[in-house]
Amino acid sequence: MGDQPTSTILSVGTELTEGTILNTHFRFIGAELRGLGFFTRRAVQIPDDPDIFRRELRAAVESSALVIVTGGLGPTSDDLTREVVAEICDAPLYFDEAIWDELVARYSARGRQIAPTNRKQALIPTGFQVLPNRVGTAPGFLGESGECMILALPGPPAELEQMFLLEAIPRIQPHFLGAQETSASVLTATALMIPESVLEQALQGNDAAAKSRVRWSTRVAHDRIVFTLRGGEENDRRRIFSDLVERFGRVRVREGDVVPSNSLYQVLKQRNERIAIAESCTGGLVSKLLTDIPGSSQVFWGSLVTYSNESKTNLLQVPADLLGSAGAVSAEVASAMSEGLLRHTPAEVAVAVTGIAGPEGGSPEKPVGTVWISARYRPVGQLCKRFQFHGGREAVRRRSAVAALLLAECVLLGLEADLEY
Amino acid sequence: MGDQPTSTILSVGTELTEGTILNTHFRFIGAELRGLGFFTRRAVQIPDDPDIFRRELRAAVESSALVIVTGGLGPTSDDLTREVVAEICDAPLYFDEAIWDELVARYSARGRQIAPTNRKQALIPTGFQVLPNRVGTAPGFLGESGECMILALPGPPAELEQMFLLEAIPRIQPHFLGAQETSASVLTATALMIPESVLEQALQGNDAAAKSRVRWSTRVAHDRIVFTLRGGEENDRRRIFSDLVERFGRVRVREGDVVPSNSLYQVLKQRNERIAIAESCTGGLVSKLLTDIPGSSQVFWGSLVTYSNESKTNLLQVPADLLGSAGAVSAEVASAMSEGLLRHTPAEVAVAVTGIAGPEGGSPEKPVGTVWISARYRPVGQLCKRFQFHGGREAVRRRSAVAALLLAECVLLGLEADLEY
Repeated sequence: MGDQPTSTILSVGTELTEGTILNTHFRFIGAELRGLGFFTRRAVQIPDDPDIFRRELRAAVESSALVIVTGGLGPTSDDLTREVVAEICDAPLYFDEAIWDELVARYSARGRQIAPTNRKQALIPTGFQVLPNRVGTAPGFLGESGECMILALPGPPAELEQMFLLEAIPRIQPHFLGAQETSASVLTATALMIPESVLEQALQGNDAAAKSRVRWSTRVAHDRIVFTLRGGEENDRRRIFSDLVERFGRVRVREGDVVPSNSLYQVLKQRNERIAIAESCTGGLVSKLLTDIPGSSQVFWGSLVTYSNESKTNLLQVPADLLGSAGAVSAEVASAMSEGLLRHTPAEVAVAVTGIAGPEGGSPEKPVGTVWISARYRPVGQLCKRFQFHGGREAVRRRSAVAALLLAECVLLGLEADLEY
Repeated sequence: MGDQPTSTILSVGTELTEGTILNTHFRFIGAELRGLGFFTRRAVQIPDDPDIFRRELRAAVESSALVIVTGGLGPTSDDLTREVVAEICDAPLYFDEAIWDELVARYSARGRQIAPTNRKQALIPTGFQVLPNRVGTAPGFLGESGECMILALPGPPAELEQMFLLEAIPRIQPHFLGAQETSASVLTATALMIPESVLEQALQGNDAAAKSRVRWSTRVAHDRIVFTLRGGEENDRRRIFSDLVERFGRVRVREGDVVPSNSLYQVLKQRNERIAIAESCTGGLVSKLLTDIPGSSQVFWGSLVTYSNESKTNLLQVPADLLGSAGAVSAEVASAMSEGLLRHTPAEVAVAVTGIAGPEGGSPEKPVGTVWISARYRPVGQLCKRFQFHGGREAVRRRSAVAALLLAECVLLGLEADLEY
């Protein structure tokens, strides 16, 4: 951290300090700043209070090379960011006609009239660059106070994230990191079914990473880790990435920001094929993840949540004696479930999950976390795999769901199901 | 905020500032502190860096009546909270034999041996009270530095939340708020299917609230709002609560921290009855929420995610001509779906959801957000209701799922389904 530029994040909003809503800015911005090479000294949340705001912004400007202010850009009197930034940076606000015209046009395009209070959103500190908002109304802005760069972003996460990635990073990078580092010098990748500590160790122990100036950052989002490799040479970043693919397989390490359900959806859509799902321990989660995607009805025939043994027999014709002899959590039953799906539905692909999510129901041979998944593709056959997941009920269920989506993708693409966890 | 005690929250951990994990402490503690009558001036996240930690803790102690430090209580050398609190409060660490003995006993009960590095977790600043950890290993502690009370809590949210509610609040309250305000002077309640702004207006416009010293705080958690009424007289709190029940109905406003899936589960379990579910637009979410509950297999027979029309006909025998004439999103089809469930399964209760989650598929008569839900109870009959939800695909799906759980509860309990949104 010695020669790293320092950063402070300052989130403004009484709805945050009173705990009405959850602040997701610190995670998003913190991970991005790490990847950009910054050392974030502090991330501070304060109420909509001008005195506290002034004091915190002044302290942040004095101690950091980059200060990011989030929130407080709305049209109400509570929204103080413009005024406080203008005061601390000695950059009086001016009314930006171009912003106003665009706001008016956007409202009228939706058949609405803009309220006069919105004029406030066209005020910008003199000398600051305007950052357009492609999602919502309030633009952001970027400027300097002495040695410190100040960036103001809107509070709604969708607006903030888009503006940060598309508008702010290209302007921040040349300033701090030299012009040679552009967005082309970033490799974004996703790690699936790899524990964070294992990925971190793999990166730390990587030769190409040790020998190069490549930096990495990771962001844990549910059951995947999005990581970025930044800086250094293109060759080095590629090498580190391909080392990880070699170690964990190309199902679990992929380029880009990959969501497993979406990835499966794309394969099915491309082939114009449909999937049917049978879920026991995941209780509907696999179906839920797939139908989170707009347009998933094209590829999702339907599913059966056969939670009870009776429903496995009744809906999927899993033989009752098989449930008795092999047990509900077994290769035989998982296989019979996916077979039942292909027999009773017109889907081309079927995936079945049966396992012990806990906390009860484990045994020495089949401890909590034991999960069998069968994925079957009509023209090819099946992949059937046992998993042993760790963690509580929720973790086991989520990991099982991701494994089911990946196994379905493997059977469709003819890939080896290299999915050890 | 004039005479309110002030508070600062300080979260320690490089995994937070680098954005590897999401900080949920500020929301939880912020909402609780608001309910306790505190004004939270700042909530700060810092890396595991002793210099930054000392500076921030000193500043917090000087400016607040209560400082809550979260994280940094683990056994590794990165975990600095004990050392820094001891230094700033001039309260040297001592080795607490009782804590150590309990740690050793807990490990050996699980057949594991405790590592010597864990001895660190038995160090406590002299003069501080120990707060037992009922979930994990690291105890918290509470003490004073001059006028300021300092509370240290472990980082894992499950440990932190339990310790804060059960151990910290009873010790903080008498100190700041006078002995008369005890946990008995809190009414915790849950608002379901009520927008936050509507609840806030109802509280602000409430006569009993205006005339009393009752304070409220709200915490938005997915599709419910947990709110607390604190202070004032028991009668006032009861009056405010019953006003809300009168206005929104007793299905949507309930005492305690109520989760809809859990509430339905309790009713089913008590009656020893089972539910079957048919989901279209929710795509498995209703089933997922119900099976999140350990032991739900007792009450959940299974479900059919009939996303395509074909699967509605094939699995639930919804007549194809009904799908053509009334449309998949209609009272007729919702009703036929729940009827199909009761015909084909042994469940006593059936709930069916069909709707348009969007973004595509809306029409002027049935815009995106139109959802029909039918809940059927064998001995009684059905409740069938149309909902018009606002928001994006995810919001419509989540709200539909909550409505389905509540409607099932209504039909079971013979309650009026007063569920306008």
